Amino acid sequence: MAERKRPSLSHVDATGRVRMVDVSDKPETRREAVAEGDVHMNAAAVRAIRDRTVAKGDPLQTARLAGIQAAKRTADIIPLCHPLPLTSVEVDLVPRRGGYRIVARVATVGRTGVEMEALVAVSAAALALYDMLKAIDRGIVIGPIQLREKRGGRSGDYRRS
Amino acid sequence: MAERKRPSLSHVDATGRVRMVDVSDKPETRREAVAEGDVHMNAAAVRAIRDRTVAKGDPLQTARLAGIQAAKRTADIIPLCHPLPLTSVEVDLVPRRGGYRIVARVATVGRTGVEMEALVAVSAAALALYDMLKAIDRGIVIGPIQLREKRGGRSGDYRRS
Amino acid sequence: MAERKRPSLSHVDATGRVRMVDVSDKPETRREAVAEGDVHMNAAAVRAIRDRTVAKGDPLQTARLAGIQAAKRTADIIPLCHPLPLTSVEVDLVPRRGGYRIVARVATVGRTGVEMEALVAVSAAALALYDMLKAIDRGIVIGPIQLREKRGGRSGDYRRS
Amino acid sequence: MAERKRPSLSHVDATGRVRMVDVSDKPETRREAVAEGDVHMNAAAVRAIRDRTVAKGDPLQTARLAGIQAAKRTADIIPLCHPLPLTSVEVDLVPRRGGYRIVARVATVGRTGVEMEALVAVSAAALALYDMLKAIDRGIVIGPIQLREKRGGRSGDYRRS
Amino acid sequence: MAERKRPSLSHVDATGRVRMVDVSDKPETRREAVAEGDVHMNAAAVRAIRDRTVAKGDPLQTARLAGIQAAKRTADIIPLCHPLPLTSVEVDLVPRRGGYRIVARVATVGRTGVEMEALVAVSAAALALYDMLKAIDRGIVIGPIQLREKRGGRSGDYRRS
Amino acid sequence: MAERKRPSLSHVDATGRVRMVDVSDKPETRREAVAEGDVHMNAAAVRAIRDRTVAKGDPLQTARLAGIQAAKRTADIIPLCHPLPLTSVEVDLVPRRGGYRIVARVATVGRTGVEMEALVAVSAAALALYDMLKAIDRGIVIGPIQLREKRGGRSGDYRRS
Repeated sequence: MAERKRPSLSHVDATGRVRMVDVSDKPETRREAVAEGDVHMNAAAVRAIRDRTVAKGDPLQTARLAGIQAAKRTADIIPLCHPLPLTSVEVDLVPRRGGYRIVARVATVGRTGVEMEALVAVSAAALALYDMLKAIDRGIVIGPIQLREKRGGRSGDYRRS
Repeated sequence: MAERKRPSLSHVDATGRVRMVDVSDKPETRREAVAEGDVHMNAAAVRAIRDRTVAKGDPLQTARLAGIQAAKRTADIIPLCHPLPLTSVEVDLVPRRGGYRIVARVATVGRTGVEMEALVAVSAAALALYDMLKAIDRGIVIGPIQLREKRGGRSGDYRRS
Repeated sequence: MAERKRPSLSHVDATGRVRMVDVSDKPETRREAVAEGDVHMNAAAVRAIRDRTVAKGDPLQTARLAGIQAAKRTADIIPLCHPLPLTSVEVDLVPRRGGYRIVARVATVGRTGVEMEALVAVSAAALALYDMLKAIDRGIVIGPIQLREKRGGRSGDYRRS
Repeated sequence: MAERKRPSLSHVDATGRVRMVDVSDKPETRREAVAEGDVHMNAAAVRAIRDRTVAKGDPLQTARLAGIQAAKRTADIIPLCHPLPLTSVEVDLVPRRGGYRIVARVATVGRTGVEMEALVAVSAAALALYDMLKAIDRGIVIGPIQLREKRGGRSGDYRRS
Repeated sequence: MAERKRPSLSHVDATGRVRMVDVSDKPETRREAVAEGDVHMNAAAVRAIRDRTVAKGDPLQTARLAGIQAAKRTADIIPLCHPLPLTSVEVDLVPRRGGYRIVARVATVGRTGVEMEALVAVSAAALALYDMLKAIDRGIVIGPIQLREKRGGRSGDYRRS
Repeated sequence: MAERKRPSLSHVDATGRVRMVDVSDKPETRREAVAEGDVHMNAAAVRAIRDRTVAKGDPLQTARLAGIQAAKRTADIIPLCHPLPLTSVEVDLVPRRGGYRIVARVATVGRTGVEMEALVAVSAAALALYDMLKAIDRGIVIGPIQLREKRGGRSGDYRRS
């Protein structure tokens, strides 16, 4: 079966050798991505956020800042990501039954897309929220985390249906 | 209601002021944590991993290394985490129907626990896996991510039931 | 004149060669430091903070988080600083006539002191505050920044008189 | 009063939610900034620099390098700063009565200005100078630190009067 | 002799003051560099790689990823390097008598070249290889490391003869 | 032959899965390592260093600082290295025929050795030296880089013969 597939994937290295894909010849265009992820927590944790009684400080601002800063460090965290000069990062936390939905929007003008940056922002914000609340609820669950939409670039726009 | 609660939380700052909790007086003890998270992908992505036809290289080794390296950078990614000299990090990717389960085990000898490090390792490994496979399946879903167990330290052991 | 001085400083390299001082033989002890610094701004900037009308978001939380995170990265920012596992970081912003006074308290259990960490926290918090407010007042002035006190370690306690 | 102000600031989020401002639509232009800051020290510290008897090595070169390297890491240190590909960084230390004046000049070709990078360079250089000299003078005072001028970009040139 | 030379180097600062050279006026062009370096090890280490019996895991993938990630962090590691948005990084390890030859190819579209990035990639890959194998052979030798070729930019192409 | 070896290496994962070795049970002891490496350059480059006519500034101080700072970042650069609180780093550059020999000495009190830190310091110093001089001599060659000695820890002392 592997034999059937490999011939058509001539750019694939037989040994799985990792490399950062060459995007030198792609034009610089505006690119955007939106990712989202849920954080599920118990009622005491939700109340602590709303009543502002979390001992380590405001969890929502901390989560937003963690998300923004991690987005900027995506090429450091994800081994094969290209470094990109981000032009915009926004992280929202929307209250939902049993927790929060985190939505991150990232933009750049560059040679490759920013979906990883948006996903990293959501993940870091979710982890920071967990960290702020773990003394209240150690059973917090993060996810599903997924790409919602993506615009710009050769591979076309994407919108999760 | 907020009034009822605040008096009992005398260590809470009225304004939600963030701070890194003081652990100077805690003893240095061995601490471990295990976290886990699932990555759901389509059949083509699963096949590409197994047939070693992923264009960017071996996704499983990349995910493991991303997880290990991110664990070491936890205090950089999570704003209020204490820096800890990790003594062990292991990241496993176990094939499951429709994807992989990532399990990270982290240990230290320190004054505070390593659950955030284990969760960061799982998240970074999941994001790296996504990055390696997004050309094949943009609809990959990450999660649920959660703490499985935790040993050592004053707050006692924890095991998800 | 240089001749007169050098003999008494036998540990000094004639060429000014930089090095990280050896602290291997010092015992691990609890060490604390408090640093402080002022940020002077115009009345419109002060009002924007108090009225919560700063376009980039809450400047005080951002400054606190910037200070805490920079403290953890001190050994990265200050070339000859030893890396230290900080056990506590707190950053306060106290309103004063014409601006804010920033006070940072840092603790560790280690082989060398944390005064640089406290000074780095104050500086980063001040710079972040500047960044949040520069659209309102480009003439913001930072300083004086100084060490207020220091406890623990061989060189004895210090308190600015 | 707050009511009077908020309607005119429609882009302001009621909750002070932090975000990295979107600069995607700004053109890439050459931008420069100059910042400056003073470091006040006692006569023994000044002499130690001039006589090259500082035990940790040459404080001026260390301060210059610390400033240059910190400028490159500005987006990491200042939470809401955009990452920018700096094209030039220079840090000067000019002897003055009772210490040194640090002047940093930073340039880029980008979508937003480099005043934060110049201020970060000055601050890091000042902190590194402190670190080199603290064994001689623990009472060193940093500041005032301020922007001196700024060129390029939509908001127009700025020069401190 | 020094007198003879200095007049012709008018841009040189008499005191050796470090600075990041100004490249603001250079055009953005495609630039590439290839660097290479050898790692010499004993027969047991070579066998352990080929037999996949290295206790810490696959040394070749680890070395490749270390090289790619270090290339992205070049401006952090080399004090006066300009930050550059790399568009491609590839690291190869070619078996040779008594070890491996590491070859790194790096590309960007920028205002200055990427030879340092290629050299940093080779060095980090070599060091990671050493780290994976040091339990088997502590006498591993790294080098010679050198630039092989360089294309693009005002200073012209270079190819080691 | 491989068959003969594998049974005795029961800790080896069949798939080469990377992991950070567990050192939790090792005692904290003083550990030191010395590494060295040569940098070969042409006569013009040697003269430029001695005459202090290098356009980017003093190459020796820059190399020393690059080496010290990279040593502190070893766990970031080498994927499977444990983070260690270094207690001492010294980097020397000794003039030799046709260039310089770089010697780095690193110490810690920790659960694992610092040979990688010493090798990283030498490599970063050599690369920084290259960067400072590449405008004069693009053919600079780095290496051999090797461990000279190592003290402390369970695996015993090592000294290159």
